[in-house]
Amino acid sequence: MDDKERLLTLTGSVMPLDAAAMEAARRRQAELAKPPGSLGRLEDLSVQIAGITGKVTNRLDQKALLVFCADNGVVSEGVSSAPQSVTAAQTINLARHKTGASVLARRFGCRLYVCDVGVNARISEPGVLDAKIAYGTGNIAHGPAMTRHQAHQALFAGLSLADTAAAQGADVIGVGEMGIGNTTTSSAVLAVLTGEKVSRVTGRGGGITDASYEKKLAVIRQAVKENRPDASDVMDVLSKVGGFDLAAMTGAFLGAAQHRLPVVIDGFISAVAALCAARLCPAVRSYLFASHASFEIGYRIAIAQLGLIPLFDLGMRLGEGSGCPLAMMVLDAACTALSDMATFEEAAIDSGYLEALRNGDAFTVKGDGE
Amino acid sequence: MDDKERLLTLTGSVMPLDAAAMEAARRRQAELAKPPGSLGRLEDLSVQIAGITGKVTNRLDQKALLVFCADNGVVSEGVSSAPQSVTAAQTINLARHKTGASVLARRFGCRLYVCDVGVNARISEPGVLDAKIAYGTGNIAHGPAMTRHQAHQALFAGLSLADTAAAQGADVIGVGEMGIGNTTTSSAVLAVLTGEKVSRVTGRGGGITDASYEKKLAVIRQAVKENRPDASDVMDVLSKVGGFDLAAMTGAFLGAAQHRLPVVIDGFISAVAALCAARLCPAVRSYLFASHASFEIGYRIAIAQLGLIPLFDLGMRLGEGSGCPLAMMVLDAACTALSDMATFEEAAIDSGYLEALRNGDAFTVKGDGE
Repeated sequence: MDDKERLLTLTGSVMPLDAAAMEAARRRQAELAKPPGSLGRLEDLSVQIAGITGKVTNRLDQKALLVFCADNGVVSEGVSSAPQSVTAAQTINLARHKTGASVLARRFGCRLYVCDVGVNARISEPGVLDAKIAYGTGNIAHGPAMTRHQAHQALFAGLSLADTAAAQGADVIGVGEMGIGNTTTSSAVLAVLTGEKVSRVTGRGGGITDASYEKKLAVIRQAVKENRPDASDVMDVLSKVGGFDLAAMTGAFLGAAQHRLPVVIDGFISAVAALCAARLCPAVRSYLFASHASFEIGYRIAIAQLGLIPLFDLGMRLGEGSGCPLAMMVLDAACTALSDMATFEEAAIDSGYLEALRNGDAFTVKGDGE
Repeated sequence: MDDKERLLTLTGSVMPLDAAAMEAARRRQAELAKPPGSLGRLEDLSVQIAGITGKVTNRLDQKALLVFCADNGVVSEGVSSAPQSVTAAQTINLARHKTGASVLARRFGCRLYVCDVGVNARISEPGVLDAKIAYGTGNIAHGPAMTRHQAHQALFAGLSLADTAAAQGADVIGVGEMGIGNTTTSSAVLAVLTGEKVSRVTGRGGGITDASYEKKLAVIRQAVKENRPDASDVMDVLSKVGGFDLAAMTGAFLGAAQHRLPVVIDGFISAVAALCAARLCPAVRSYLFASHASFEIGYRIAIAQLGLIPLFDLGMRLGEGSGCPLAMMVLDAACTALSDMATFEEAAIDSGYLEALRNGDAFTVKGDGE
């Protein structure tokens, strides 16, 4: 099977949500002992997850955070505040549970998968999975980031990691990244896919000066002009102005959906990859959850394109998947409420109870030994 | 010591935040290996919690959710959609981990304390703590809810439960309630304390009809007119138009602050009690965290008075403390990031590392055996 066939097989295998499971979940929500609608979005989330898994009640015991790490040749243009070496260092620190996303993942019981899909250093660190396509991408200001075949390779590496997480029992997957320069590539991809002006989808990433920001805008414009990506062909866009991380994340979103798992977007880069996945396979959209409202300005454009509303807004913009652990707790809460709360019937305590109170008797309720 | 002296001793014992610990926490935040500010509000939260506990880094291992249950005589006016018996039933269901807040508390490892401060039924249920002041309050439409002494008794019951939670190792406390009719009493208290129009602070609670809503507004107006509470005297307001739950929650907020523990507000009723606590003791304000933006319209007025911004908005309006478990996870995340992330120095991996990359060498990083 060639790249194209393999991708078509993948995108064709993502199922629509299970309408019967969603209807049964809605019925159960209505029977729970609470004012209707009083759990707000938690109710909608539980219904959506029922549709995803096909099961009315769900327990998100096994949480998985997939972090794809790669370098971007475009950093030689001076678009980033941090040196490229930070990618390799933080890839290792992720696996050692020293970075923001990884300490949160550990604290909240998320299994962490750190995957090198293109870091510009040879990394021999236990805990970093090796799926390196190359030592960083080409500089998109002067040519394509990678070949079309490499973009497929990276996408399938992401798919493969989602397969692994699913095989190891993941009930929900979060998708993050580490890669100096990847807000630049993400803005380029988003500008092409949406037709938005570069200035509307480009922020300051890790924190750059005014001069560097102007440079970043110019570099993205040049990258688009130089490479002429075809907006209707996601793999063309990813290969020409994207990155190994973006392509792998796209594959991870597709893979999670193929496995009928809810999948959580982190910040800007993650949202752009999710948009790539949804463009390749519109059915993916129903599997996606936006975690936090990223501070990066392109984020809201990507997330609006996906028709999503973030679960919370804490002004975060760290990346790495750092928004996913908390978001997975929100999804967990939604599923827990639907599965564990008593129904009105179960909550009635005792058949003589209401009547006794109605008669004004002091009423002793007997414990049921629970 | 009489009630007044005891309350003054309590409010006088709440310490201001520890400025040195906050400054040290800010310094540590600046040293963490991430772009400055990239953890958004999590950074501010970690600094505030350092000020609360006096320790630079904190671990919120033991989470406690305190739920105060009581009945309100005003329900005889027809202001609620649910019968009064629901208070007793849900008090028991809370302790049996069958309600919304209690299933979330169990799922997220919060120790649950369910406390009867005035349910209108004799409850003999293991897991329900007995601190009953009376079998429900008086009907505020025709007289005071309780005596001033009873308001103090309820407040000290709440304080006592916070003492217990602290003694049992709580690192953070959430405060919730169960009591049919308590959005009516909360709106009355809030209207008096703020001088706002009754219609601006009154919502539909558990979900009532238009006619019942008009009745609810009329009853609150009548209660204020009938009882003439003194807005400058919180105990007068609580005793005349409040409830045992509101008074106990006020005491719990004061107690948490006295023990230098961060304390989490749930929804509308909890926010009104927090406002009562802050009026009695302005220093309490710095110990408070707003969890979710409640759907009840009075909530935003109470929370604005406290100068707080909710951590998330999921459209919840269940009460019981149901917003607290997730909010405590957010505070936990904030503390975890500050304590567990590597500093720039710790993140550097290897002194030869940056140079090797600068020279374009492929570089093998050695694991450190972690």
